[in-house]
Amino acid sequence: MGSIPSDDKYPLGFKALDENSLVEYIKSAPQIVSALGGDLNELSIKEVGDGNLNFVYIVVGPSGSVVVKQALPYIRCVGESWPLSKERAFFEMLTLKRHGALCPTHVPEVYYFDRAMAIIAMRYLKPPYVILRKGLIAGIEYPLLAQHMSEYMARTLFFTSLLYCSAKDHRNSVAKFLGNVEQCGLTELVVFSDPYRLSSSNRWSSPYLDTDVQSIREDIHLKLEVAQLKSLFCERAQALIHGDLHTGSIMVTENSTQVIDPEFSFYGPMGFDIGALLGNFILAYFAQDGHADESNDRQVYKQWILNTIEDTWNLFHDKFVSLWNENNHISGEAYPADVFNTPQLNILAQNKYMQDLFHDSLGFAAAKMIRRIVGIAHVEDFESIHNVQKRAYCEQRSLQFAKMLMKTRNKFESATQLVSAILQT
Amino acid sequence: MGSIPSDDKYPLGFKALDENSLVEYIKSAPQIVSALGGDLNELSIKEVGDGNLNFVYIVVGPSGSVVVKQALPYIRCVGESWPLSKERAFFEMLTLKRHGALCPTHVPEVYYFDRAMAIIAMRYLKPPYVILRKGLIAGIEYPLLAQHMSEYMARTLFFTSLLYCSAKDHRNSVAKFLGNVEQCGLTELVVFSDPYRLSSSNRWSSPYLDTDVQSIREDIHLKLEVAQLKSLFCERAQALIHGDLHTGSIMVTENSTQVIDPEFSFYGPMGFDIGALLGNFILAYFAQDGHADESNDRQVYKQWILNTIEDTWNLFHDKFVSLWNENNHISGEAYPADVFNTPQLNILAQNKYMQDLFHDSLGFAAAKMIRRIVGIAHVEDFESIHNVQKRAYCEQRSLQFAKMLMKTRNKFESATQLVSAILQT
Repeated sequence: MGSIPSDDKYPLGFKALDENSLVEYIKSAPQIVSALGGDLNELSIKEVGDGNLNFVYIVVGPSGSVVVKQALPYIRCVGESWPLSKERAFFEMLTLKRHGALCPTHVPEVYYFDRAMAIIAMRYLKPPYVILRKGLIAGIEYPLLAQHMSEYMARTLFFTSLLYCSAKDHRNSVAKFLGNVEQCGLTELVVFSDPYRLSSSNRWSSPYLDTDVQSIREDIHLKLEVAQLKSLFCERAQALIHGDLHTGSIMVTENSTQVIDPEFSFYGPMGFDIGALLGNFILAYFAQDGHADESNDRQVYKQWILNTIEDTWNLFHDKFVSLWNENNHISGEAYPADVFNTPQLNILAQNKYMQDLFHDSLGFAAAKMIRRIVGIAHVEDFESIHNVQKRAYCEQRSLQFAKMLMKTRNKFESATQLVSAILQT
Repeated sequence: MGSIPSDDKYPLGFKALDENSLVEYIKSAPQIVSALGGDLNELSIKEVGDGNLNFVYIVVGPSGSVVVKQALPYIRCVGESWPLSKERAFFEMLTLKRHGALCPTHVPEVYYFDRAMAIIAMRYLKPPYVILRKGLIAGIEYPLLAQHMSEYMARTLFFTSLLYCSAKDHRNSVAKFLGNVEQCGLTELVVFSDPYRLSSSNRWSSPYLDTDVQSIREDIHLKLEVAQLKSLFCERAQALIHGDLHTGSIMVTENSTQVIDPEFSFYGPMGFDIGALLGNFILAYFAQDGHADESNDRQVYKQWILNTIEDTWNLFHDKFVSLWNENNHISGEAYPADVFNTPQLNILAQNKYMQDLFHDSLGFAAAKMIRRIVGIAHVEDFESIHNVQKRAYCEQRSLQFAKMLMKTRNKFESATQLVSAILQT
């Protein structure tokens, strides 16, 4: 850090890098140099951040490669008018490491972190890795996706919850992540509030969705449900969640699945992660009709997405319950082994827990779907449908389904029912 | 602090005071001297701590009086073998000040705090103030009690919740109070775990309650319910709760009600406070038959307790909803005014919120009752019934009621129904 000049505008040694200054920076960071195999000649550097918040550089040298990510103290896609703490990089790094320790197969390795500069250097997931969302738009099947994502969610959520941890350790960890308050505030705003009121940030496929958007703002029962979900998000420290687990935070190949970008992570309701994933799968499903053409009607692919939705929950359910059974002797705070001391009692407790979690997940899935259609940040699944009428039709069906799901989520008993409901939309 | 010698055993300047060293200590604390009117001659000092944890000194001089409370780094009634952070005094002070600012009529003034010594000096509530529990045992009616306690709970809970606060302020406060982790751990242990398992800490009126205690350990549905309540306690940061709001934490006269001892305070579920109070009222009710004698059959008093139970919830409900309506323009995080923008919507939201809160409160009331009969810490309401068989009878009825309440709490729709159920036990 000593060799990095600090910018007057940003105290504490922070300076926004660019492709040139990055090389100088790397020279001062032995762990990055080491990840590059010690050879800094002929580095190729490319900025690829397609997200809304950060800069992401791919650095490839003759003997190694690395991704260098820098958080700026404002929202990239808005500019300095919308400040956002660069401390999000600190929480992203913490969660990459914690989730990585719990599920190393599905989380990329962190090589280096610089808090003042808000820089994380981590494993470069080189092609053929693509962002899952792009794969879903292209109609590519990932046969191991449900398996991998259910494994990631089961392990990261179970081991950071009171099913495994003591209340003391849990409270200490919860307190630490409460520092990620600005990221949570962004979610509270753009997921749980703005879509349900007039807001200059909102946008939608106008004029096609004008009445849909208005009906959301006038839907009493929807607003009551979303308020419950928002309170859950704000109040319930159930596990260390990723906080932004949509299909743009997942890198895939046919054989591998890697979860990235946990900068919104904090101790929140587990269903927010599961719901983000399921909700984005459902968006991908409803977008398929917009991607269908003469060469591919996408019917087979739609069925694959539905199977993936069903498998993701069912495999998650089974893996999570298995972890619970395997770790029963550890006796986390919530269900002490000497209180939950019969198989019958444990099965009843697990059934209730998983049912509640399923309902939470469906509620959050619906909230995440709605906000992607009428809120500030949209998804490429729909945005890439160039025929606006076609896009609006896909969005309308998604909205219709999401509204129904949020209001009736507690009636769903299985992922099979969820898939049936999607098919009936 | 400079003049207080530190004890080798306790670093950071801590030393356990006694009645002699307290005088020297007071001389070094101008705020205490000032509360005593500047006159330190002929101080009368009396240690009166009847609680389980701390030392409490009443200091009376010719020109003023003060209570000095010191937390020791272990549990007083157990001894040094059960360490407990003296930092609880810091959280007690914080909450006395925060709740005091929100409801000055019902919280005594703090004059002085010394974190290293874990000492709080506060207003001395002189006779005729008595501890409410003792008043209830003596059969004394407090006509303003329900009014006062509902006011205290409505104001302290509403203004520290997301109904009033922004999520940002809320998360910062939640993080601060997560430091009171040892006190929370004690509650988790003695309220939510030990009563439902074999534990050497448990005691009960043996042999009369032997089968009752065993049946609790074997009651599958009770254990499932208490686990839900425990998770709520551990995970849900709903408001800054007192954390120990039983009738021993309340000082009363006919005209005044003062809430003391919030050393278990943290951001937890509101129902834990409301339930603690209601549960202890119900214990006081079931204890009355043990206090009845030829001169007073306690029938009139029992009816007064029932009225107080009903009034406490109903007045709390009305005051809480009034605060919600009055502060609607403030727009706390949970129900933003521009989302909850019609009277009908607000009424629906309030009805749901209050119904859920009532059910939480009944669950916690039941948990607090059960633990006082079969756990480590009992209540004077029963302990003062010297005829053991009579006491066991009162305890058995309480247990029977509490078990029913915990399992069926979600079916209760009003405080009237609660009182009917008590009468039917």
